[in-house]
Amino acid sequence: MPEQSPLDLAEGDPFGPHNLPYGVFTTADEPDRRRLGVRIGSHVLDAGAAAYALGSPYAALLAQPSLNPLLAAGRTAWRDVRRALTAWVTVPAHRPDIEQLLHPIGSVTLHLPYEVADYVDFYASEHHATNVGRIFRPDGDALTPNWKHLPIGYHGRAGTVVVSGTDVVRPSGQRKAPADAAPVFGPSVKLDIEAEVGFLVGTPSELGTPVAMGDFREHVFGLSLLNDWSARDIQAWEYVPLGPFLGKSFATSVSPWVTPLEALDAARTSPPARDFDLLPYLDDSAEEEPGGLDLRITVAINGHVIAEPPFATMYWTAAQQLAHMTVNGASLRTGDLFGSGTVSGPEVHQRGSLLELTWNGRDALELPEGKRTFLEDGDVVTMTAWAPGPDGVRVGLGEVTGRIVPSAA
Amino acid sequence: MPEQSPLDLAEGDPFGPHNLPYGVFTTADEPDRRRLGVRIGSHVLDAGAAAYALGSPYAALLAQPSLNPLLAAGRTAWRDVRRALTAWVTVPAHRPDIEQLLHPIGSVTLHLPYEVADYVDFYASEHHATNVGRIFRPDGDALTPNWKHLPIGYHGRAGTVVVSGTDVVRPSGQRKAPADAAPVFGPSVKLDIEAEVGFLVGTPSELGTPVAMGDFREHVFGLSLLNDWSARDIQAWEYVPLGPFLGKSFATSVSPWVTPLEALDAARTSPPARDFDLLPYLDDSAEEEPGGLDLRITVAINGHVIAEPPFATMYWTAAQQLAHMTVNGASLRTGDLFGSGTVSGPEVHQRGSLLELTWNGRDALELPEGKRTFLEDGDVVTMTAWAPGPDGVRVGLGEVTGRIVPSAA
Repeated sequence: MPEQSPLDLAEGDPFGPHNLPYGVFTTADEPDRRRLGVRIGSHVLDAGAAAYALGSPYAALLAQPSLNPLLAAGRTAWRDVRRALTAWVTVPAHRPDIEQLLHPIGSVTLHLPYEVADYVDFYASEHHATNVGRIFRPDGDALTPNWKHLPIGYHGRAGTVVVSGTDVVRPSGQRKAPADAAPVFGPSVKLDIEAEVGFLVGTPSELGTPVAMGDFREHVFGLSLLNDWSARDIQAWEYVPLGPFLGKSFATSVSPWVTPLEALDAARTSPPARDFDLLPYLDDSAEEEPGGLDLRITVAINGHVIAEPPFATMYWTAAQQLAHMTVNGASLRTGDLFGSGTVSGPEVHQRGSLLELTWNGRDALELPEGKRTFLEDGDVVTMTAWAPGPDGVRVGLGEVTGRIVPSAA
Repeated sequence: MPEQSPLDLAEGDPFGPHNLPYGVFTTADEPDRRRLGVRIGSHVLDAGAAAYALGSPYAALLAQPSLNPLLAAGRTAWRDVRRALTAWVTVPAHRPDIEQLLHPIGSVTLHLPYEVADYVDFYASEHHATNVGRIFRPDGDALTPNWKHLPIGYHGRAGTVVVSGTDVVRPSGQRKAPADAAPVFGPSVKLDIEAEVGFLVGTPSELGTPVAMGDFREHVFGLSLLNDWSARDIQAWEYVPLGPFLGKSFATSVSPWVTPLEALDAARTSPPARDFDLLPYLDDSAEEEPGGLDLRITVAINGHVIAEPPFATMYWTAAQQLAHMTVNGASLRTGDLFGSGTVSGPEVHQRGSLLELTWNGRDALELPEGKRTFLEDGDVVTMTAWAPGPDGVRVGLGEVTGRIVPSAA
């Protein structure tokens, strides 16, 4: 029996030819040569080398140390490159060329695959915002009056977006319990996660010119899982009146694999019904394709599943977020990344943060290694997800994982 | 009588050899070749060409289209390059070489001189924060409980930082008066300025490692005037609970000239007395050099001075802001820019925003061309500043200016 080819995938492999997410890798032999890779099954295809081997007109775009040139090339290039890649991994005649350019994922190092320009984080789950409002502002309405009129967002720190697998140092900062007279300084005692989906902008836009919802696919290349690590005690003390700052800026982890939007066509779904008509630039009731995405996320601490947040329940869609973010004329750059905001569904088990899952520490989670309210040093948080793909096959999203290491202070 | 050299400056010229700010310029002949320039009087010295002509070891660092390589080179290089530049423009033997590399400022185009990495904006004037608190939260305390414990800050949009002279398109967005049932959409009717000073980071820092106040000069290269344009109506409706977003992200203008910190040694001054001891990482009572800067800012609309904000009154210093911004382990990158926050002094005429000067539109300013509460289309806002320099000579800061053009919507 001949040795099996890495291209002979098990039926229903979520990283089959219907998926083909992009990443950037190095090999042990050449640790300084970053290369664009495409995941197929449990291997990485050296995309630039494949393009040269097969005489692709996109070879120069793919033989790059970063995804940014492809991101900047625009939607036609994205489509053509994807079509070519699909052929390379499926047409039998290409096998001899392709097989020798495949690296087992376990043998390579994966890097942050793009240079982040601006990072924006939204707050788009009604269930999450309601839970947070009840916890942080128990005396007021859970949702602020603006919440259902616009997708609330804020800028985060682009320079501390890190690739999955990067250790997260427990941040230190100021915190103050309501009863305390003055703040104290020290390592955060309420270190948390936020299960999110990050959308990656490819095509830039002009300063002064808004991007309409209908142009979403012209500008957004793809998405990945994102963990917006949050220090709740630091955040609670600092965030009035100008929003989260140090409670968030120490690290944001993203998956090394960027899934192209085109791989997720079968996952399109309608967002929840709106309570009232939205202003025209956000009104998606007449959009050609539904703006929601049926992504099923799983969050685990040290391998034990603690939540299964359903992305389909998000109130605001990514297209609405893009339209809102630019309606004031703000320009987009290649590499802009925007997070969906924490994904939480209506059920307790669907909440995408420990803040909500433990109700700010009141209700500890029971894990085999002990109780958890917030994260302890050594904890490893891993998020995975899948979406319905063509013909009932799942589309896997690359995992995002990170381990908490003790504060240096 | 021989023709006067551009290097023979009038006595007390605020852009004399004691100043030497950096910028990036192009000439009409070569509009695509960006070059590093140094301002001397009313001329720009082609710094790279001068370095090559005089055989400087820093020629490669200066013959660049951006300030970023010099920023990344670190404090020793900054000091050495400044020493060399001072010699080039003052030692008579260099005149023949230098004079032919000078361009009248009016003949060149000035560009954004660095690539902005992350942009952070602070809120460090007690007078400003008190005024804003009284206007926006009339029923609460003017200062939030955290204000005197930490320098409040938030991330802004790095991609919309523009160089002085760039037109500012009036942003559109949602606004809602308290009495209205629902928000309306349209061009902002409360377009405002914020007179600020922006600090530019050169030397990066490691993720997970805070930067202490005492290391401020190792990391921060220099400063410039900054106008953080603000749409107050958009901001008021959107900013609870996650802070300003579209009310700020449409444009932030900076001067084309970056003044090195070393030119401002004589302007060092002590910040206001603190109400109580600060936490150790912010306690600057024992710092070797005072953390404040005596910068005198002037704000004009269409040439008419409307305010003279004194930077020396800022409660929080730039060194404290840097220490706070990194105390959670957030890393710095070359090109990080942080704004001081609006500079407002105790007097009405010292307020750095129209929001404060007109008390949110209640008290119109009288200008020759009519009353102003907020900015009208066609208005040109110009900020200038100077600081005490060595031997009683002023150090000029490069102006930042911008014209409001009508909304495209």
